[in-house]
Amino acid sequence: METLSRARCFGGEQRVLRHRSAETGTEMRFAAFLPPQALAGDRVPVVWFLAGLTCTEENFTVKAGAQRVAAELGLLLVAPDTSPRGEGVPDDPQGAWDFGLGAGFYVDATQDPWAKHYRMRSYIERELPALVGAALPADLARQGIMGHSMGGHGALTIALRHPGRYAAVSAFAPICSPLRCPWGEKALGHYLGPDRAAWRQYDATALIEDGARVPDILVDQGTADGFLDTQLKPRLLAEACGRAGIPLTLRMQDGYDHSYFFIASVMEDHLRWHAARLERMAEGRSRPRA
Amino acid sequence: METLSRARCFGGEQRVLRHRSAETGTEMRFAAFLPPQALAGDRVPVVWFLAGLTCTEENFTVKAGAQRVAAELGLLLVAPDTSPRGEGVPDDPQGAWDFGLGAGFYVDATQDPWAKHYRMRSYIERELPALVGAALPADLARQGIMGHSMGGHGALTIALRHPGRYAAVSAFAPICSPLRCPWGEKALGHYLGPDRAAWRQYDATALIEDGARVPDILVDQGTADGFLDTQLKPRLLAEACGRAGIPLTLRMQDGYDHSYFFIASVMEDHLRWHAARLERMAEGRSRPRA
Repeated sequence: METLSRARCFGGEQRVLRHRSAETGTEMRFAAFLPPQALAGDRVPVVWFLAGLTCTEENFTVKAGAQRVAAELGLLLVAPDTSPRGEGVPDDPQGAWDFGLGAGFYVDATQDPWAKHYRMRSYIERELPALVGAALPADLARQGIMGHSMGGHGALTIALRHPGRYAAVSAFAPICSPLRCPWGEKALGHYLGPDRAAWRQYDATALIEDGARVPDILVDQGTADGFLDTQLKPRLLAEACGRAGIPLTLRMQDGYDHSYFFIASVMEDHLRWHAARLERMAEGRSRPRA
Repeated sequence: METLSRARCFGGEQRVLRHRSAETGTEMRFAAFLPPQALAGDRVPVVWFLAGLTCTEENFTVKAGAQRVAAELGLLLVAPDTSPRGEGVPDDPQGAWDFGLGAGFYVDATQDPWAKHYRMRSYIERELPALVGAALPADLARQGIMGHSMGGHGALTIALRHPGRYAAVSAFAPICSPLRCPWGEKALGHYLGPDRAAWRQYDATALIEDGARVPDILVDQGTADGFLDTQLKPRLLAEACGRAGIPLTLRMQDGYDHSYFFIASVMEDHLRWHAARLERMAEGRSRPRA
């Protein structure tokens, strides 16, 4: 694990790190914000931010304005990259931005030529948490997960597949059902092949239909987001949550688009949502049982 | 004046605009954040942010996290580009990043081949304010100016040359004396020629020595800034302000570097500094005279 950069930020420290990934077979980068409490020696809760199409670990780090509130709340923020990169990693044959590099979709690919490197599910779920726990003052018993667009899909599906692991899950303009949108159909079709039954573990609405549960979900969605009706479809998530009895706080934000200006505008609410649930989790654990 | 993009942000609107500049003879871009009060129809105070070497109008806009507090305080933020650009605009002959494109130094060049396009002083002082006043709901009777590094130099020198125009001036890690640092000597030597007397109007400490005054100045400077001792030299500004009786609030920020992570960490303080002085200016104007 190599630290590429460190910068003091809101009393904490913003780092970019690089390591060799066994899952992807490549070097991977991620960004980590250590709040002041972590620099002072505490092991602090971790909130994961999974980014959207075309992003790296940098977009969230420089654009989302999350460090101020994370510093106040004592949250360690981890922002991974969105795909493997480097020599030998295949990209979209036409160089399209919605598949391949920058578009790992948080799946373990099963189809050639993608299966060798595109293992973002195992990387995010298993390999990177272990590395973060070993290298940083992170308390992995207290985690939350959030994401934007493709990363919102990642956050929702990972939380749904691991009930109890994350105290909180939230998303900014998430792709709610890859089974039912062009981005998802392209990505899952290539990474997983034509059998759509294999896609259901990577679709938040399908996971909920198949019985997966989380205590609650926060989603913000801009009404001026150009991808709202074609790709994101929060109505599908609302319907699935409604049928399953999962409390979904879906806030349609008037006039906001798909950009980090939107994410920054609601980031504080999301971090406080996570902090409140991480706090409750810690209280529940320390309370003596009757 | 063409609006290239608009994005809702903290209840306001972040825009990028493009126009033909008579001063630079090129197309110029700038970014403007309109707070909610401006969208509701008010003419609101303007705070200018002048960026540093290599920057465009984008860096401040996406990295400084200023919109949240500007929305609260009702400030219109304008972030210009840092040099003319485009076909026919000469750059550093060696392509160095500290001169030419992205490095206009907020001067009107007098030397060939720079004099034709490099007129950032007149552009920022005269042309752009008039365009902003005409195209946006800006109250030019209430202005503040701030900047980073080369832009801190710009903010300080422009405010010192226009006593009474700006209610407040502040800077993040400013170049305090271009006459006495390599970046400044290179830039002013090329743009203005070898006669150093002509440089003094572009040096905050020289302007103060020559009698220019502002009511007070706020400067933040990171102690881990790699340019602190060689290029920035806040001690020179402190000495000049001390001799002139200008109250300088110089805050040395422990462990911070030269990046936007530093700027973002202290941005709120600067915006509140400006808002307080803009408020006082407005009160002074509306108070009946005895």
